[in-house]
Amino acid sequence: MPKLDLAQVPVKTGSIYPEPYASMMQGRSSLRLGQAGGLTQFGVNLVRLDPGALSSLRHWHLNEDEFVMVTKGVCTLVEDQGETDLHPGDCAAFPANTPNGHHFINRSAEPAEFLVIGTKAPREVATYSDVDLRVEMEHGTARFTYRDGTDWRGPR
Amino acid sequence: MPKLDLAQVPVKTGSIYPEPYASMMQGRSSLRLGQAGGLTQFGVNLVRLDPGALSSLRHWHLNEDEFVMVTKGVCTLVEDQGETDLHPGDCAAFPANTPNGHHFINRSAEPAEFLVIGTKAPREVATYSDVDLRVEMEHGTARFTYRDGTDWRGPR
Repeated sequence: MPKLDLAQVPVKTGSIYPEPYASMMQGRSSLRLGQAGGLTQFGVNLVRLDPGALSSLRHWHLNEDEFVMVTKGVCTLVEDQGETDLHPGDCAAFPANTPNGHHFINRSAEPAEFLVIGTKAPREVATYSDVDLRVEMEHGTARFTYRDGTDWRGPR
Repeated sequence: MPKLDLAQVPVKTGSIYPEPYASMMQGRSSLRLGQAGGLTQFGVNLVRLDPGALSSLRHWHLNEDEFVMVTKGVCTLVEDQGETDLHPGDCAAFPANTPNGHHFINRSAEPAEFLVIGTKAPREVATYSDVDLRVEMEHGTARFTYRDGTDWRGPR
């Protein structure tokens, strides 16, 4: 049955980030809809942000295109040019290898949600804009480094 | 600016189908949001169906994953197991190489819309479930054939 039963999709919480960044993701949860539907070529996540929550650290992808549509509430997009409120139906696109770090913050008092689609590249590097951190992803395994490529050992 | 101005995205109408199938797509239009945002790895289209309109001929993809979220109105999903009404927020996933042909029909009296995401594979074959038709896509060029692979010359 191609229609997804969203009530049956596990709610994912937590973060693969090392501390202190993982704790900054409290109030964020997501449904992995693409995975639930058997898709492998791109990810589709429905992300819920409680009031005050962040979608991620501000980042950009080397190899993976990313697309967002807000589906509930107000999600504030933060990127190099500043902040923009996105309302339900508003969309944003983030082409691969465009070093304009972005994330979303729920600055409202109500829950907010967005749908996010991202390619599943076999190898990926995400670079974080506001801290000295990057992550190399290869076949689902993450290696966190400083921006100079050396192993991450704590904030600096 | 990552946020898309949907009012500036060209409204695409028409169909690449040969007749008589192209005329069956009247009342369908779309905004190519991924293209407007500079994405190349997957397509993101916001499809509008006037009352009575079809999203496409019922079809399945050989190489491309596909995902749909309804954003307005009621879209009736038609696939091998029958018909299912999808309302705003409802989602459906269509993994590549799953020969369960699907399309959407707006059986209501109001406009309906859905967001559809599909991988952009370098080579693709779509097979139509209800007519003797398939299409081979290679680098943006379409070749319509019968299901036996010979050139399409008209309904049979």
